Amino acid sequence: MLDELSRIGRDPATNGYVRDAWSPADMELREWFRQEAANRGLGLHDDRNGNLWAWWGDPDREPGVVTGSHLDSVRQGGAFDGPLGVVSAFRALDLLMARGFTPSKPVGVACFTDEEGARFGVPCMGSRLLTGVLDPGRARGLTDDDGASMAEVLRAAGRTPEDLGRDDETRARIGVFVELHVEQGRGLADLDEPVGVASAIWPHGRWRFDFHGEANHAGTTRLEDRHDPMLDYARAVLQAREAAEKHGIVATFGKVRVSPNNANAVPGLVSAWLDARGGAEPAVRALVEELSDGRNVSEESWTPVVDFEVPLRDRLAAAVGSALADVRSAGRRPAPVLPTGAGHDAGILAAAGVPAAMLFVRNPTGVSHSPKEHAEADDCAHGVTALAGVLEELAR
Amino acid sequence: MLDELSRIGRDPATNGYVRDAWSPADMELREWFRQEAANRGLGLHDDRNGNLWAWWGDPDREPGVVTGSHLDSVRQGGAFDGPLGVVSAFRALDLLMARGFTPSKPVGVACFTDEEGARFGVPCMGSRLLTGVLDPGRARGLTDDDGASMAEVLRAAGRTPEDLGRDDETRARIGVFVELHVEQGRGLADLDEPVGVASAIWPHGRWRFDFHGEANHAGTTRLEDRHDPMLDYARAVLQAREAAEKHGIVATFGKVRVSPNNANAVPGLVSAWLDARGGAEPAVRALVEELSDGRNVSEESWTPVVDFEVPLRDRLAAAVGSALADVRSAGRRPAPVLPTGAGHDAGILAAAGVPAAMLFVRNPTGVSHSPKEHAEADDCAHGVTALAGVLEELAR
Repeated sequence: MLDELSRIGRDPATNGYVRDAWSPADMELREWFRQEAANRGLGLHDDRNGNLWAWWGDPDREPGVVTGSHLDSVRQGGAFDGPLGVVSAFRALDLLMARGFTPSKPVGVACFTDEEGARFGVPCMGSRLLTGVLDPGRARGLTDDDGASMAEVLRAAGRTPEDLGRDDETRARIGVFVELHVEQGRGLADLDEPVGVASAIWPHGRWRFDFHGEANHAGTTRLEDRHDPMLDYARAVLQAREAAEKHGIVATFGKVRVSPNNANAVPGLVSAWLDARGGAEPAVRALVEELSDGRNVSEESWTPVVDFEVPLRDRLAAAVGSALADVRSAGRRPAPVLPTGAGHDAGILAAAGVPAAMLFVRNPTGVSHSPKEHAEADDCAHGVTALAGVLEELAR
Repeated sequence: MLDELSRIGRDPATNGYVRDAWSPADMELREWFRQEAANRGLGLHDDRNGNLWAWWGDPDREPGVVTGSHLDSVRQGGAFDGPLGVVSAFRALDLLMARGFTPSKPVGVACFTDEEGARFGVPCMGSRLLTGVLDPGRARGLTDDDGASMAEVLRAAGRTPEDLGRDDETRARIGVFVELHVEQGRGLADLDEPVGVASAIWPHGRWRFDFHGEANHAGTTRLEDRHDPMLDYARAVLQAREAAEKHGIVATFGKVRVSPNNANAVPGLVSAWLDARGGAEPAVRALVEELSDGRNVSEESWTPVVDFEVPLRDRLAAAVGSALADVRSAGRRPAPVLPTGAGHDAGILAAAGVPAAMLFVRNPTGVSHSPKEHAEADDCAHGVTALAGVLEELAR
C-alpha cells in the first residue's frame, strides 16, 4: 500500500516528498483514503477541520478505538513519516477482519490534516483545531509562501473556512487513540527492537524571528551606511547553537525567507524560524528568552511536555510483546518504552485529555524529514502485527 | 511615461517591482516598448538575444548613436533603475524631433534583456550574449527558482533558444552607446548636481556558495549527530563582512536558497550568493579567495574594472554642462564625472570595445534596488534635456 502512494507528490530530482496541506498531492492522498475506506465498507467522516475518519462500527453508539496518523509531508520529506501510520492502520484492520475478530467497540482509522505545518507554519493543525487549542480565526489568517491565507486555500479546495474550530462531537467519538509512526531517532535500532511504545513527547515550539534592515544596492551602498539584517540573522544562528549546547537541548534555524532575496541587494527583511525542544521546559524557555533579547520574535506554536498515560502505555507494551513474541529475542516481554523529540497529533490529543499512545517502528539510521528516511519491510510488517494486537486488546 | 509603466509588475503589498526576464510583466514591458517605437515611426529590431532596438534612420547604412537601458527589475526593486533610461531615451528623441533636428547618423533606442539577472543569476544577460562574453550553452542551462532552464523559459515565451549567442551584425550597428541611469549612491546629491557622467565601473562579481549538510529531523537529531549547513553559512556571512572591512570593499550575501527550508528540519543544503565589488580588483579577488577556502564555490559572473573612454566622457560632460546651463549653479561648466559600484550594460559594451558612456540622474537618498529608490521629477526632466544635448552632440 505504501508503494501505491509512492508516486504522489514525489520530487523526481531528489526523491523527496512535497505534500503540502490542500495541495493537489494532498487532495490525491485524501481521495486515496476515501477509496481505501470504501473498499473495506467503512463509514467515512470528513470533519469540520478536514480530518478524515473511516469507521468500522458506529462511533455515535459509543466512543471507539482509533488509530491512524497523517498523509501530508514536510517538504522534501521521506515516504514513512505519516503514511506508515495510516497504511498500517488499514492493514491492521485487514488482519483483524481476516481473523474473524468482532470488535466490541467501534474501530476507526484517522487521517489528520496538515500535521507537519509545512505550508502555514503551524504543525498538527487538524488536531489543534479539533481540540480547540488553536484559535480558528488565527488559523484562517495564516499565509503560505505565496501569500495565500488558509481561508483562501480552503475555499479554493471547495471547503468552508468558517467551519474550522473546536469539534466536541468528533472528539467524543475517540475513546482512545493509538498512533503508529516511524521512529525519528535510533532508539529502537540501538536496542535491536522492531517496535516500541512512546513514553513522552518533549516540550517543543516554533518561533518566528523578523530581522529588519534597509534594502539597498549591494554595489553602491557603503558598509557603514548599511542596515543589513543578514548579519543579525547569522549571529542568531550561531548564538542558537551555542545556547542549545549550553542548555543541553536542540535548537534549529531550518527555514529562512529573505526579502527581496536578490544577489545584488542588501536585504530589507530576513525572517527565520527557530525550532527548539528538549527534555525539560525551563531549558527550552531559557534558550528562547536569550535569543529573543531585543529581537522581533513571535511564538508560532508551543506544545508542553506530553507524558503518555502510564497504565495505557504499559498495557500496549505488553500487547506488543505478545504480538511479536516470535520475532523478538526478548520473547513475550513487554516492548521497550522510549521518549521522542518529535511532535505528533497523538501528543495534542493526550494534552487535551484524550487517552492516547504511540507505537514506533524501527528506523535503522534514525534519519527523518529527509528522502533518506527508511524502515525495513519486515519491521513495517511487525508494526502492523503489533498494531493489530493492540487494537484487539483495546476493542476486545 | 514612467507613470504608464508604474502598474506593471508592482507588488501592491510593498510597492516594489518584480519584473523577471520573460515573465508576464516583462512581456508587457516589451510590448510597451514596441508600441512606443511604432508611435514614433521607428524601425523595430528584436535581436537574437531578445534585446530590442528602435531605430530612427537605417543602422545598416552606418553605425548609429544609441541610447537606452533595460526594463526588467531586481525583485522588489524601484521604479527608476532601468526604465528611467528607456523612457528618457524616447523623451530625448521627442525633444530632438520637436526641435526639427535632423541627425546625420541613425539614432537608436535600446532595451537590453535581463540586465538584473534576477531570474537566472547572471546580470547583463542581453549584452553579455550580444558581445560573446557569455557562452550561450551556459546561458541556456541556467535555471530559475522553479528549476526551469532558460532554454525552457525562452521556448515558453515563443522564442528560439538556439538563436542565443554573439551577434556581430547587431553590434556593428552601435557606433556609440550612452546609457542614462538613476544614480545608485549619493554622489550627485552631495555635489548638488542634477546630472553627472560616469568615469568607471568598479570590478565586480557574483559567486555561488553551496554549503552541503545532511537533512534531518530538527527535534530528534542530537546536536553532535548533525551536519547543519546553516551554521557554515552563518559563519561565511560574518566572515564576508569582516573581510570587506579589512579590504576596504563591499561584500554582500543578499540571496539564499535553503533546502528543504522546513522549520522542523535541519537543512540538507544552503546555497547563497556573494556579491563583491571594490575600487581595485586585487582586493575583491583576495576577499573571494579568503572566503572560498575549503568551500564549494563557483563564479557566476565577473566583470573587470571598466574605465569609460576619457575623450568621450569629457565631451559628454561638456554637452551636459551646455544643455543644463540654466539650471546649474555651475552654469556652463562641464557636468561632474564620478565612478559607480553598479554594473550596467554600458560597462559590458565598453569592456567589449564599443565606445560607451553613461549619464546619472541625481538620487536624493542614494537608495536603489528598493521600493524607496527615487528621483525628483525635475531631475528626470533635466536628465532628458541633458541626454537630448548629448545625442545632438554625437549625431549632429
